[in-house]
Amino acid sequence: MDCIFCKIIKGEIPSYCVYQDEHCYAFLDIAKDVYGHTLVIPKKHVENLLDDDCDEITVAKVAQTAQKIAKHYVANCGFDGADVVCANGASAEQSVFHLHFHVIPRKENDGEQMWHFKGGKDFDLADICQKLKID
Amino acid sequence: MDCIFCKIIKGEIPSYCVYQDEHCYAFLDIAKDVYGHTLVIPKKHVENLLDDDCDEITVAKVAQTAQKIAKHYVANCGFDGADVVCANGASAEQSVFHLHFHVIPRKENDGEQMWHFKGGKDFDLADICQKLKID
Repeated sequence: MDCIFCKIIKGEIPSYCVYQDEHCYAFLDIAKDVYGHTLVIPKKHVENLLDDDCDEITVAKVAQTAQKIAKHYVANCGFDGADVVCANGASAEQSVFHLHFHVIPRKENDGEQMWHFKGGKDFDLADICQKLKID
Repeated sequence: MDCIFCKIIKGEIPSYCVYQDEHCYAFLDIAKDVYGHTLVIPKKHVENLLDDDCDEITVAKVAQTAQKIAKHYVANCGFDGADVVCANGASAEQSVFHLHFHVIPRKENDGEQMWHFKGGKDFDLADICQKLKID
């Protein structure tokens, strides 16, 4: 398996680990974009949430660990909030195909902006709902 | 409790529901920004992942339901991927204070861009790791 995140978990590639337990490994993103940008990954290799091998325990553990880290950053490290983001698939801008939840610590007036999607498009939500709903 | 999402769950405010079960309710975001933009919320009112009332079962159920919807959109509705996003706190751009995971279905070349943070800043990751890690 030639997965860079699996190599990080094994210690074959160095990383800045902020937390790990039986199920998950959390380390600093090397993008150096937002201070404290952290990645939470399962020790089990799955591509993303769309992967049939991504069982419900794996999803739960990664989400709970992202919560744990977000709470720690706000409680103990001087942040006010956190964005949690998971990209699934190349079209969703996923770049490494090992499931990862980004935890992006935030402060008031930090000058960052997570949300750029433009609203107010000419969508018929009733029609979209009919097409997308799970029966 | 004057929470707009609690009112949506109770049916006191109409919504475009795509899925619900015992724990979660999923409906279309009214922002009309990205086609199929969906919000997954717990039926239990908690503010966000930082809320001490946000127990691990609630986190697991919301994340698993976001996964279920993302998989459905890709398997059955013509999408290639999905972003899953949870903003926690006003500084993280959370606007409604009832926990919600956005599911944003994506297609190749859909013209949207989730990720805008600028990388390559002058960060000392070893120092940041020392400050943020959970001992």
